[in-house]
Amino acid sequence: MTPYKDLSVEELTTLKSELEKRFDEIKAQNLKLDMSRGKPSKAQLDLSMGMMDVLNSDTDLVCEEGVDCRNYGVLDGIREAKQLLADMTEVPIDNIVIFGNSSLNVMYDTIARSMTHGVMGSTPWCKLDKVKFLCPVPGYDRHFAITEHFGIEMINVPMTDEGPDMDMVEELVSSDEAIKGIWCVPKYSNPQGITYSDRTVQRFARLKPAAKDFRIYWDNAYGIHHLYEDKQDHLIEILMECKKEGNPDMVYKFCSTSKISFPGSGVAAIAASTANLADIRKQMSIQTIGHDKLNQLRHARFYKDIHGMVEHMKKHADILRPKFEAVLDVMERELGGLEIGNWIRPRGGYFISFDALEGCAKAIVAKTKEAGVVMTGAGATFPYGKDPKDSNIRIAPSFPTPEELSKAADVFVLSVKLVSIDKILKEKTA
Amino acid sequence: MTPYKDLSVEELTTLKSELEKRFDEIKAQNLKLDMSRGKPSKAQLDLSMGMMDVLNSDTDLVCEEGVDCRNYGVLDGIREAKQLLADMTEVPIDNIVIFGNSSLNVMYDTIARSMTHGVMGSTPWCKLDKVKFLCPVPGYDRHFAITEHFGIEMINVPMTDEGPDMDMVEELVSSDEAIKGIWCVPKYSNPQGITYSDRTVQRFARLKPAAKDFRIYWDNAYGIHHLYEDKQDHLIEILMECKKEGNPDMVYKFCSTSKISFPGSGVAAIAASTANLADIRKQMSIQTIGHDKLNQLRHARFYKDIHGMVEHMKKHADILRPKFEAVLDVMERELGGLEIGNWIRPRGGYFISFDALEGCAKAIVAKTKEAGVVMTGAGATFPYGKDPKDSNIRIAPSFPTPEELSKAADVFVLSVKLVSIDKILKEKTA
Repeated sequence: MTPYKDLSVEELTTLKSELEKRFDEIKAQNLKLDMSRGKPSKAQLDLSMGMMDVLNSDTDLVCEEGVDCRNYGVLDGIREAKQLLADMTEVPIDNIVIFGNSSLNVMYDTIARSMTHGVMGSTPWCKLDKVKFLCPVPGYDRHFAITEHFGIEMINVPMTDEGPDMDMVEELVSSDEAIKGIWCVPKYSNPQGITYSDRTVQRFARLKPAAKDFRIYWDNAYGIHHLYEDKQDHLIEILMECKKEGNPDMVYKFCSTSKISFPGSGVAAIAASTANLADIRKQMSIQTIGHDKLNQLRHARFYKDIHGMVEHMKKHADILRPKFEAVLDVMERELGGLEIGNWIRPRGGYFISFDALEGCAKAIVAKTKEAGVVMTGAGATFPYGKDPKDSNIRIAPSFPTPEELSKAADVFVLSVKLVSIDKILKEKTA
Repeated sequence: MTPYKDLSVEELTTLKSELEKRFDEIKAQNLKLDMSRGKPSKAQLDLSMGMMDVLNSDTDLVCEEGVDCRNYGVLDGIREAKQLLADMTEVPIDNIVIFGNSSLNVMYDTIARSMTHGVMGSTPWCKLDKVKFLCPVPGYDRHFAITEHFGIEMINVPMTDEGPDMDMVEELVSSDEAIKGIWCVPKYSNPQGITYSDRTVQRFARLKPAAKDFRIYWDNAYGIHHLYEDKQDHLIEILMECKKEGNPDMVYKFCSTSKISFPGSGVAAIAASTANLADIRKQMSIQTIGHDKLNQLRHARFYKDIHGMVEHMKKHADILRPKFEAVLDVMERELGGLEIGNWIRPRGGYFISFDALEGCAKAIVAKTKEAGVVMTGAGATFPYGKDPKDSNIRIAPSFPTPEELSKAADVFVLSVKLVSIDKILKEKTA
């Protein structure tokens, strides 16, 4: 394929009218497709339907501690749920506290608590003039929404193919006491599908923060969400790594079963050092009478143990893999060699990230919408919704069927081509 | 019965040694009884076991809005759950937002949000020098724990038999801008079982607070938790009352099904004006991906509607009534006329409140413990755990069996008598 930039104005103009004709044909089909949200499909939800039968009116609802899960009691999670989620997030059972149905809620509460009560005795952040967070970009819009909600200043840190730019992270964290945290999705990152390298994790664990209450917000949302059995990314366990480096309290790990069992009816947890968990439990005892133990029991008994969960994840992979491949195949076939965009072929997670030519992302998303294909809004992967290069687009292939995805991908690549041609033509004729 | 204060020193001394003998006999039984927590009994939990069968792997899990309850979507509650809890708390469906499993958590989050973001645009409380709450006493320890946790100064307001002392409430609320709220359990109050009179509710609705962001925290925890079918307290609906008085935004109502279905696995909600709910939803959209819709569906389908729930509550009453009566009968028989304590015979709720002679509550609770009966710690019903008169004791009769309760009540009245005699003897011989 000849890169578009090497085509003449005439060639580009001819190509453009051909592509426009095809675009209009597709537009006439009145498609209604959505690639905007990392939402499991019905087939994936059906995988966990057995969970609805695990507890019934004949079931013994007493957990391992001997507590009737229907009643009050057990603040921080029943033992069998702790064991399951501890194994899932690769920490000892004593380093985990179980929460409600949403890890986002756990992250929000963690920031909210730091605002009003500080971190392990530090000054409450709401009493400080300035609080800042580092935000590897592109990243997860809901992380950025939380920090923005609390008036925390966000600093973009570029992602590399082995994680955030660690030179920049080290320099900023060690020199600025106002920097209290960094948002990380370390495995199959949202949206790029990048897994932090061993070296990156080690450099995280060795950080020397200026702020005592600096924490790494390690949102391991896709820790066991592989697409392939034979090609899996590996991530070093950060809690142990921090401990080894003499920074045991520097990290909060977040996880949930939202994309394992049911989004909205899963179980979320935080993993951290004993000292951090003591701080968290102190607040929990004021905040709640405890989370839903029946749902914890339902999860623990359905998966039995981490091996059951890993087997379950293979079924998710079988459903998701063809969807990712449907989109990636169209992208590779149609965009390969044209030099109008870059993307990574992820081995897990929920997203594909596309970097268009600078200044083209918004126009591409608007173009796909014209043909009935909804994408995540351009800019959403950056703090304040502002992608300085207007380049990144997040593609979520989980919800539509593979057939729908092929159609949606066709619309997407056509839109990329048309918008890119416009840009190149403009430059060539300027 | 002759009041103890009218007995001579000799009579009291003789009585004391008789009572001590009986106390020692009971002590020798090595009882292990707990009247400390408002915790439903196993028999009550069994009433809702049918709920475990409502959803199974063959069930259609789509709610009235057409959303698959297993997946993401629907931030503020599915329609059928809203209808059920709106009817339960006597508000229009548009005035309710469904939360997770714990109304305490909703109250905590409401205060936390006010601390960091203010109320409908007001200055965040964490930016103010001083924030105060009014606390009708005796009251619910977990309310006081939340306000204490956030460094909010608590001001005691005495309860009367028709609710808080409204002269004091009106004067304080209208004169002090630092007063941002008042904790209320308006029906079958914790711990006294008092229901606010119509006049009290009307005076609440007509408050003219100095602070724009003053809110009434109306924790209607026992709204339908009657003990009798033929003797029920009635409470005016505060949201409508506030609206009529031109104060539509002045109240948050909290409720949950914790003591209807399962503690810890129920559904909680907040009811408030449209403007308040808009403020709350704005934060919710940042905080969570939404609460557990499957559990909402389970509740809505199990109870079907408010009538089903009311029928269900009669079964709870049938279990609870004999327990309350067991304790009250012993108290009336053994303490009636002695003038060493006061109590109210509640028509609903979860507690009996006992006011001992001044300075006796701690000693009584310590005494019952000697004989193996655990009561709520004296002072717990007051802010900072400090009962200025050391007089109030909360009795929770829900968890033990009626037989156990009779025994526990025997220990209790014996302890009251012994401690009271000591006090009176001390006064007479001083």
